[in-house]
Amino acid sequence: MPKLEQNPSPSLKASRSSYQYGSKKGGNNRRPRTGTQVTPNNTLLTPKKKVNIIPPPESGIIRIIPLGGVEEIGKNMTAIEIGDDIIVIDAGMQFKTEDTPGIDYIIPNTTYLEERKDKIRAMIVTHGHLDHIGGIPLVMNRIGNPPLYSRNLTILMMRKRQEEFPQLQALNTNIVEKDSVVTLGNIRIRFFGVTHTVPDSMGIVIETPFGSIVTPGDYKLDQIDGKVTEEEEKEYAFFDKEKVLLLLTDSTNVENEGFSLPEIKVHEGLDKLIKQGNGRIIIAAFSSHLTRLMKIVEIAESLGKKIILDGRSIKTNMEICEQAGIFKPKKGTIIPIEDVDSYPPNKIIILMTGAQGEEFAALGRVANKTHKKLTLKPGDTIILSSSIVPGNEISVQHLKDNLTRHGVRIISYRTSEEYIHATGHGNQEDIKWLHRKTHPKFFIPIHGWHSMLVKHKEIAMSLGMSGENIIVPDNGSIIEIVDSGERIVMRKEKAPSGPMMVDGFSIGDEQDVVIRDRVMLAQDGMFVLIATIDSSTGKLRKSPDIISRGFIYLKENQELLHQVRLIIKKTIEDGSKGMNPINFDLIKTTLGDNISKFLFQKTAKRPLVIPVLLSI
Amino acid sequence: MPKLEQNPSPSLKASRSSYQYGSKKGGNNRRPRTGTQVTPNNTLLTPKKKVNIIPPPESGIIRIIPLGGVEEIGKNMTAIEIGDDIIVIDAGMQFKTEDTPGIDYIIPNTTYLEERKDKIRAMIVTHGHLDHIGGIPLVMNRIGNPPLYSRNLTILMMRKRQEEFPQLQALNTNIVEKDSVVTLGNIRIRFFGVTHTVPDSMGIVIETPFGSIVTPGDYKLDQIDGKVTEEEEKEYAFFDKEKVLLLLTDSTNVENEGFSLPEIKVHEGLDKLIKQGNGRIIIAAFSSHLTRLMKIVEIAESLGKKIILDGRSIKTNMEICEQAGIFKPKKGTIIPIEDVDSYPPNKIIILMTGAQGEEFAALGRVANKTHKKLTLKPGDTIILSSSIVPGNEISVQHLKDNLTRHGVRIISYRTSEEYIHATGHGNQEDIKWLHRKTHPKFFIPIHGWHSMLVKHKEIAMSLGMSGENIIVPDNGSIIEIVDSGERIVMRKEKAPSGPMMVDGFSIGDEQDVVIRDRVMLAQDGMFVLIATIDSSTGKLRKSPDIISRGFIYLKENQELLHQVRLIIKKTIEDGSKGMNPINFDLIKTTLGDNISKFLFQKTAKRPLVIPVLLSI
Repeated sequence: MPKLEQNPSPSLKASRSSYQYGSKKGGNNRRPRTGTQVTPNNTLLTPKKKVNIIPPPESGIIRIIPLGGVEEIGKNMTAIEIGDDIIVIDAGMQFKTEDTPGIDYIIPNTTYLEERKDKIRAMIVTHGHLDHIGGIPLVMNRIGNPPLYSRNLTILMMRKRQEEFPQLQALNTNIVEKDSVVTLGNIRIRFFGVTHTVPDSMGIVIETPFGSIVTPGDYKLDQIDGKVTEEEEKEYAFFDKEKVLLLLTDSTNVENEGFSLPEIKVHEGLDKLIKQGNGRIIIAAFSSHLTRLMKIVEIAESLGKKIILDGRSIKTNMEICEQAGIFKPKKGTIIPIEDVDSYPPNKIIILMTGAQGEEFAALGRVANKTHKKLTLKPGDTIILSSSIVPGNEISVQHLKDNLTRHGVRIISYRTSEEYIHATGHGNQEDIKWLHRKTHPKFFIPIHGWHSMLVKHKEIAMSLGMSGENIIVPDNGSIIEIVDSGERIVMRKEKAPSGPMMVDGFSIGDEQDVVIRDRVMLAQDGMFVLIATIDSSTGKLRKSPDIISRGFIYLKENQELLHQVRLIIKKTIEDGSKGMNPINFDLIKTTLGDNISKFLFQKTAKRPLVIPVLLSI
Repeated sequence: MPKLEQNPSPSLKASRSSYQYGSKKGGNNRRPRTGTQVTPNNTLLTPKKKVNIIPPPESGIIRIIPLGGVEEIGKNMTAIEIGDDIIVIDAGMQFKTEDTPGIDYIIPNTTYLEERKDKIRAMIVTHGHLDHIGGIPLVMNRIGNPPLYSRNLTILMMRKRQEEFPQLQALNTNIVEKDSVVTLGNIRIRFFGVTHTVPDSMGIVIETPFGSIVTPGDYKLDQIDGKVTEEEEKEYAFFDKEKVLLLLTDSTNVENEGFSLPEIKVHEGLDKLIKQGNGRIIIAAFSSHLTRLMKIVEIAESLGKKIILDGRSIKTNMEICEQAGIFKPKKGTIIPIEDVDSYPPNKIIILMTGAQGEEFAALGRVANKTHKKLTLKPGDTIILSSSIVPGNEISVQHLKDNLTRHGVRIISYRTSEEYIHATGHGNQEDIKWLHRKTHPKFFIPIHGWHSMLVKHKEIAMSLGMSGENIIVPDNGSIIEIVDSGERIVMRKEKAPSGPMMVDGFSIGDEQDVVIRDRVMLAQDGMFVLIATIDSSTGKLRKSPDIISRGFIYLKENQELLHQVRLIIKKTIEDGSKGMNPINFDLIKTTLGDNISKFLFQKTAKRPLVIPVLLSI
């Protein structure tokens, strides 16, 4: 039973003073917590923190620190430090995993930046997806609220998200466009447009004395059958003359061969399916795939159909697109869901959230019949216009089963005959094209799991790059371009890189104890026993109280409880016999051990046993 | 925040007497628990149970009850009831999901069978995979230990598994072979051999007056490029003359087009990779893919290489194969892992468990450097010869990252140029072939999620079957063939079908409260407050004790604790003022509410708040 190894002797850890709140890890050899508590009124209980001893980069040295997104897919963040200036690129977030129960989300570790707030000239954001902007509200405060630069739509998306955190101060936003040039501190920065699933995605060119540092953000090429469109070629044309010192680029799809499927194929596929359909068409997609959502509205208009938007994030995002001036539906195209029955079924297209099987998203509620305004019926076609995010397979299967029970037709990515989804990230051939186009001297693969970055390095080498000119980073790696731009090296020291967990109002990189307790509680529950001892006699004053949750169903195990009470009584009264004063700590330890052993013997479970002794 | 909906008002539920052990759900309107406690010494605390009122099938009626495996992949079990006889086919298990933390595994609900023990003539098992045999040790006892029938290897595998449960009685096993005929009660049963990833897989033919009921168990066809081999044709030849009343068959791969990749292609791919390799080759595979594992040993022998087996389940399974006489490695082929360095690297092949990213499996330990006897080195090739079970994507990614850091070459299923894995289940064309071959009158799709069963129904209909002759079942559906074999119907009543959770020694279909508590504890932890009240004055005797785990890191939140103590004191002393006697229940409820509200306000978390009042 591997779980035994995971939860070694809970009793030993738990059987300490109840005053050691929330911590199972005893002893004094612990690092100080660096967690911070953000209360709703925005006071910060800033903890003491070790000052990071990494010296600033010497003159002529360019420092690059990927702070997130290089040992995972998500929470992207990179810092560029030249002289007295730091430029931060993106501040993404990631959702919790099975290993971090109860966590709201995870953001990059910003300690390095927090310690160098004065040097931060800007936060530049490449595009409006959560793995690039999700950390903004939580991060900006911590790093001194530097000015934010991005394109119009992205700025609007960040502002909208910021509204969810009313306690935080407004963002200092600055709109740049793809032809803008800004000088931040002593650094000159330019931008270029890239193709992604959200409009206004941009790449960044940071000028240095030795050439430019380039990152395209998330991108795929606008191409058909491997032929890159003229427009796209034009966007990248300046690279023919650009001296690129360093390329930092996305590795998400580096394992996929060929070119990435162009979005236009998906538009064609959806167009075809929408034309074929006789009944209502419900399309569930990522609410972040704005390009596709807008296209579907266009298709609807061309076919004289009505659009219903359902699900908060889709509604919000379409509103933002209207506000940005890139989405102009005709009057009357978008109708409220309440009017769904006022039109013939073949006139209705519903855009919904919930393609990942999220229980409380619009499609999930329709599927399990808790949606108040929409009931599925035979004749409806559901198009799941998205891939399945790893980890969501079972939820999506439940969704499909629930939908199937309504007698509707389901078209999903893996089995559809038409293209109904394409990733926003470039595949191997897109990646190679970018490398050739930008012909960088040095290369740092970012955005991806470690194995993907290594694969990306191999691809770069297959294109002729020397392995010495490539650094595969970890989160927090401090990489420097030295010798007047001639050499790239990784420093021995690392910036703090433990993921910062957002848990209610608290944000910290040291919630390991709390999370470990949660994992343990989820496994076998807890068992608190409260004994009141007469300190003069060492006898119990009354039968011990027992509080247990998540362990076993005790109502039917009264005999077990009876035995537990006997063990408590015997342990305490034997243990305190002849002792004066009574050593409560010792008794507590013995009690925890005895009860844990007994419970394991009887149930094969190891609940968190917490003995509480009250001396009266 | 959806989590608010998931955990409504914990305080209201928690603020009850601490004597209501382990249950949050108050009131008396609860169904009696049907959980059973299997203690190590094999005494059963059998609970009271409602007798199921479903009448036995009338004479001439054939009843089929899929008890597991038809709303999921896993825990397969089907019962066939004719007159006074019940035949049970398979007793699988399933692993826990995110929704069932702490559960060891899940087995089919056997209540229907438990109530009809006397009628059960046999448990027949199609093959030795855990989704068909995993429930055997836990189920047999409950259904009266009927005789078990299967082929030799499967019997050995079940016996081996039974050894892990020393408290249980030995299985009453009976070996049949594919040409055997047995008569159980009044039912005559025959068998046939099928191709799967484990040898000795068999199909079952149950004779009835109206034709036979056929299930192939798990199967794919032994074919190359769609041409079924002569041997395979021979196995199925008897169907040409068989009058098949009902086919029950696997839907696992019903969404995959074409024929399933034959295992021989994988053998060829592995052979090629093994020949190419200059260094050590480590192959991680499902330990249940015995055919492949044995083949790899054969390849090693043909190339003069040594084999190391690492990981308990692989070792055990290869031992069983030897015992069954189907695996006869040459002396000296299999060497102990301690001898790994006694041979040149290109002479070493290591077969390992852990391809799913299991942290404590052999490959996981090698990857994270906790394996005591093996260290990876550049030059090693790791072949992940398996698909990724849905839900394991992230773990496998972690595994790949850890492996990558050793500088080894990793070959995985999705990106390999050679075939290194094939499923054991038939795709659409295998499935169609089987339907045509068996030409059944009625059809019940089994083994798969609901949407897969519906897809399977559509395929059967595309082959000419009438929808009326097909029933798509749920777990517990009671299906009957009536009118002298002329009609198939689903009864309105269902057999109990809630999944049985195995949790330590306890097995029950009603652990919902315990599991719900675990989910809640994992989300926000717990907060127990213990107040000692002087019952004569209503004043606190001392400062309240607070025990919290998995909530927030309290050591740095002393101010919060201070405020909590003030609220406790105020709530109790205000609440008891002028009250005689003191209404402790009322105070407890108020206290739970007040503290929950306060904690949520301050932390945005909702721990399980449990107030304990001790009156002295």
